Amino acid sequence: MVETIEWTDRGVVMIDQTRLPRETVYVTCRDYKEVAEAIRGMVIRGAPAIGVAAAMGVAIGIQKGEASLDTICDTLAATRPTAVNLFWAIDRMKTLARSLSSRPVEQQRALLIEEARRIKIEDVAICRAIGANGASLVPDGKVVLTHCNAGALATAGYGTALGVIRAAVESGKKIAVFADETRPFLQGARLTAWELQQDGIETSLITDNMAGHFLKSGRIGCVVVGADRIARNGDVANKIGTYSVAVLAKENNVPFYVAAPISTLDLTLSSGDEIPIEQRAAAEVTHVFGVPVAPEGIAVENPAFDVTPFRYVTAIITEKGVARAPYEESLTRLAS
Amino acid sequence: MVETIEWTDRGVVMIDQTRLPRETVYVTCRDYKEVAEAIRGMVIRGAPAIGVAAAMGVAIGIQKGEASLDTICDTLAATRPTAVNLFWAIDRMKTLARSLSSRPVEQQRALLIEEARRIKIEDVAICRAIGANGASLVPDGKVVLTHCNAGALATAGYGTALGVIRAAVESGKKIAVFADETRPFLQGARLTAWELQQDGIETSLITDNMAGHFLKSGRIGCVVVGADRIARNGDVANKIGTYSVAVLAKENNVPFYVAAPISTLDLTLSSGDEIPIEQRAAAEVTHVFGVPVAPEGIAVENPAFDVTPFRYVTAIITEKGVARAPYEESLTRLAS
Repeated sequence: MVETIEWTDRGVVMIDQTRLPRETVYVTCRDYKEVAEAIRGMVIRGAPAIGVAAAMGVAIGIQKGEASLDTICDTLAATRPTAVNLFWAIDRMKTLARSLSSRPVEQQRALLIEEARRIKIEDVAICRAIGANGASLVPDGKVVLTHCNAGALATAGYGTALGVIRAAVESGKKIAVFADETRPFLQGARLTAWELQQDGIETSLITDNMAGHFLKSGRIGCVVVGADRIARNGDVANKIGTYSVAVLAKENNVPFYVAAPISTLDLTLSSGDEIPIEQRAAAEVTHVFGVPVAPEGIAVENPAFDVTPFRYVTAIITEKGVARAPYEESLTRLAS
Repeated sequence: MVETIEWTDRGVVMIDQTRLPRETVYVTCRDYKEVAEAIRGMVIRGAPAIGVAAAMGVAIGIQKGEASLDTICDTLAATRPTAVNLFWAIDRMKTLARSLSSRPVEQQRALLIEEARRIKIEDVAICRAIGANGASLVPDGKVVLTHCNAGALATAGYGTALGVIRAAVESGKKIAVFADETRPFLQGARLTAWELQQDGIETSLITDNMAGHFLKSGRIGCVVVGADRIARNGDVANKIGTYSVAVLAKENNVPFYVAAPISTLDLTLSSGDEIPIEQRAAAEVTHVFGVPVAPEGIAVENPAFDVTPFRYVTAIITEKGVARAPYEESLTRLAS
């Protein structure tokens, strides 16, 4: 498996997720503004991965001494509004930076770089733990449906939803995966299908609008998806289309699991209604790899995320354990 | 508005729906095999439109004297399995041809051409009647969601679902339309958005996986879709993704209407489980206008239709009136 993101002497190196799977190209961000641009442009995406990227963005900004800590953090925080891991990582770096303010500059820089690299290493371990906690929930001998990409590419490695799938396979279960292509950005077709193909996990690609048909067919044993932000009551913001899959799963009595690190919880929000939903450019819908698929000048709606109310969520799988309803109680316990 | 299909002295002329909206190109089918190929390759698509095409295919086959009536009809019937209008139109032509067998050949040919042209003219009138019957069901001042293209391009003109929308607009209602893009063939993005844009009806394009989000938002007053085959109990086969929209509409208390001519009813089938679902080529999913969007060699599922159980259908709008549950009773009455 390729590395999603790496700290190097040349800068923060990321695999360009806008160009996969057609081209395997690496982008090197040499300052914090380039890191911010990479997050905004979805060169790197996925809630845990953009948390790592933001941490490395703070580290490189301070290393280069280009701007104040606040400017660096504000720029990185303004890239994307929905995934809370971004703000979590920036806050963690900011808190450390402030605690180091009396130290020599070189030492501050070294310790911030070390912290960003630690966040990355921790994230892989967290994904492994999520996988271990979720593997037993996956029914043997059936298909697992996933939406978007909550895989190695959405994290520092191994993945959250795909971590659960990988762990289930590693535990000896005979499962196959249906990957929703996940329009408009096609993370399922481009990233999930590619990741699982590389791992030799049997995967079929479907368009998003086929998920209901297959959930009704009885072939799907469970759904596992990632999350961008989870409110205190268990409402889950995740890639647009997740809500539809959750409703269709419930309607057909298929368990719907959310796999996410504790850093995706936002216990300050009482419900998902308070989660800001990013609106992205119309061109993502009207064009595919630059090819127009709609008449010129057509109006477009492009919310990048939706909110799945907690009543559709069978369980939330974290590195600390599996939360079930009532979520306010179970999530607060796991987070503490 | 362009003509979907026309009988001319040169052959059967169709607008090439695989190339819209990027190019407005007309295809001329000079024999029944070319008509069959155009139906199979979705140069023309939409249940009523392929009924008209098949009728013209029978007429041109008999006109050219290329093959027996049975060979012509069997070839046209083998193109696509789900839409029953295809078989209905072929049967109608076959019945007429047999009744004419004692007439001079030239007269047979002329009468079959006349019948095919009549089926087209009738279809436009049927669409107008569907529109008139459905317009009052559309809530004023809200958004209408539609899936795929059940418009002028899916019929001989005016459309079924889009006929209802057009009639509602003509009656003075202030409505806007959300068009699901409808992967993999993108009939919503390419055809519905284009048709409605030409008519000056306010339309926003969304990806299929956004429909649930907007149904939950309260902005959508009703859903209107077409149909490819309707069983006696009211189960509806329509473009893949229709089932998902229907479930999400019901979950959010939004009325879900099906607009279709009586020729779409298949009262020989007791339920939708008996409707054959066409599986189409993987390349439709893995490529968009020839551009690969998935890793090479990935497995694909590509059912072209799904079945929406009658319990999700608020009403079925036909040219003869509006059917409501219990459908076996209401549909049988309208069909007689």
